Amino acid sequence: MPKEIFYYQELLDFSEKVFLKIGCSKEHAAIASKVLLSADLRGIDSHGIARLSGYIRLWEAKRVNARPVIKIIHETPSTAVMDGDAGLGLVVATYAMEVAIEKAKEVGTGWVSVQNSNHFGIGAYHAMMALEHDMIGMAMTNASSTVAPTFSVDRMLGTNPICVVAPAGKEPPFVADMATTTAANGKLEILQRKNLAAPHGWVQDKDGNPSTDANELKKGGALLPLGGDADHGSHKGYALGAIVDIFSALLSGANYAPWVPPFPAYLPMPAQQPGKGIGHFLGAMRIDAFRPAEEFKEHMDNWINGFRSAKPIAGIEKVLIPGDLERETEIERMKNGINLLPPVIADLESLSKKFEIPFN
Amino acid sequence: MPKEIFYYQELLDFSEKVFLKIGCSKEHAAIASKVLLSADLRGIDSHGIARLSGYIRLWEAKRVNARPVIKIIHETPSTAVMDGDAGLGLVVATYAMEVAIEKAKEVGTGWVSVQNSNHFGIGAYHAMMALEHDMIGMAMTNASSTVAPTFSVDRMLGTNPICVVAPAGKEPPFVADMATTTAANGKLEILQRKNLAAPHGWVQDKDGNPSTDANELKKGGALLPLGGDADHGSHKGYALGAIVDIFSALLSGANYAPWVPPFPAYLPMPAQQPGKGIGHFLGAMRIDAFRPAEEFKEHMDNWINGFRSAKPIAGIEKVLIPGDLERETEIERMKNGINLLPPVIADLESLSKKFEIPFN
Repeated sequence: MPKEIFYYQELLDFSEKVFLKIGCSKEHAAIASKVLLSADLRGIDSHGIARLSGYIRLWEAKRVNARPVIKIIHETPSTAVMDGDAGLGLVVATYAMEVAIEKAKEVGTGWVSVQNSNHFGIGAYHAMMALEHDMIGMAMTNASSTVAPTFSVDRMLGTNPICVVAPAGKEPPFVADMATTTAANGKLEILQRKNLAAPHGWVQDKDGNPSTDANELKKGGALLPLGGDADHGSHKGYALGAIVDIFSALLSGANYAPWVPPFPAYLPMPAQQPGKGIGHFLGAMRIDAFRPAEEFKEHMDNWINGFRSAKPIAGIEKVLIPGDLERETEIERMKNGINLLPPVIADLESLSKKFEIPFN
Repeated sequence: MPKEIFYYQELLDFSEKVFLKIGCSKEHAAIASKVLLSADLRGIDSHGIARLSGYIRLWEAKRVNARPVIKIIHETPSTAVMDGDAGLGLVVATYAMEVAIEKAKEVGTGWVSVQNSNHFGIGAYHAMMALEHDMIGMAMTNASSTVAPTFSVDRMLGTNPICVVAPAGKEPPFVADMATTTAANGKLEILQRKNLAAPHGWVQDKDGNPSTDANELKKGGALLPLGGDADHGSHKGYALGAIVDIFSALLSGANYAPWVPPFPAYLPMPAQQPGKGIGHFLGAMRIDAFRPAEEFKEHMDNWINGFRSAKPIAGIEKVLIPGDLERETEIERMKNGINLLPPVIADLESLSKKFEIPFN
């Protein structure tokens, strides 16, 4: 039986060595690996080390630049547009968030729209950088089109996630990180592996009919915006995904709508390229630009405790605060290790061979 | 048969006269009426002139101050906290949005959190103030608790809407304005009047069981967050409503969570008052703080045209852009008038008698 449980540190070290091999600087390799592994720790398995080989394939396809010169191309006291120079989004977004935080220190808030980037991992990593500065953090990114807007057959948007985090006092921070679809693609992949049907409202078939086939995306179907159908407010999920696209790409000069480059390197690039790479949007708001941070955090504790003491429905232990599950998973996995699936292990083993880095 | 169709101007005039009678300044009466009627024009009937008597009852209950001194109580170059002095939210929010716009002119973006206010009407009115300045506009507000978070029996959040607008070039602006619930209360009221069941995922009963009874709220039940249930991402709608609460009230010092004062004056005030009044959050981002406005607007046109030319599902004429329906309704109602329901007309007639203002 091959090893299935891996410790955070060994996966982090392996990931760093792989990124170094493709020519990343020591600093970039460390950042990229930390962002990647934060997804595994938090239980977002689809966005973690399982994607390492995907990033490498993008580099092989010359779509990821391992030595990017990430720079500000326009700015005001509270805003900036950054050019990621086709670097790893994992790295580019952390630089952008640092700029947002610096601007928030100066003028209260900072907002950075990024062009010419690649997938940035999980939004929560970037947004949570704001917490140690007593700031609210935000992170959004667009992604290649898998989502059909309400009433559309065509895929026009990515799963375009929104992450917003806020510090609390004695309580852990509020961390909301969500795809603007009913369910993220990773949840469909779990159903595919188990050969189970998807709930109504997750996907539609290639003609736009409701479907419960978890494999619908491979057959020309689409994910559905949060809400699922018009009766359940899918126009709201569609609007949220659109807002992410506007903030991340229309403001920065990245590609948008169905013209966002896909993550899998084997997929063809979209016919049009109205911008450069994919786009992100990072934001930071200093709490004490509004009210004293201690006062805010006391009220956040009161808010959180209010929700924790809400009466749960029958059979449920407690009402959760956004971020609770991921934080508990992180504590558990940091201690007991991260369980990787056989195909992910095989992927890492092939990287191990290719780059002559010991693994397993 | 009593008159049922009213023209914009006659309702605007009547509303202004009513607000003057309770002691509002000429300027405030004009603003409040314009915001209120913008809801009727855009087809958001639940938030328009139908609420005029509700605002008056709040004034009678001494919960609305007709002569507020609206002021900034803390600020940085890009942020402000404003105290609405218990004024009409309709007015307070427009002042707050003006501050956000002024700050955006200076430092690129402006963000204003408001305490001690009342219901602000529709978010779209306030957010759209940004458009003529070539800015992205945002408006949020919290509201009294009618919504049960995922797995909760208790109502802990309001319908907490989010509005984001962005200018386009030749195309009309992008205007997304949505409650963070599956369906707004107004939609339930329509079903109640027609004696129809609600779709699954709109409401739950007083024990947290799924329900299709459109009258569930009156029986101790609750509205459900966008998504409807945990299988369909209701934790995302819950998180969105929570973000609105944090930005609008935790940042400003307003009441939050189940402690937000109710709009109907006959309902008791919540037991706790952790802040003052209800809270709003207004934002403005200057487009050219990111890239030239003309360039952005050309790409917005391209984005909008992309969505308009997406293939619609069978039986549907076209894929809509957020704001399309409301804009079409506004054009139609400005021309042909606004159809009011008998109870709304009766309400306005009783205001007419009370304040000796001719109506109908």
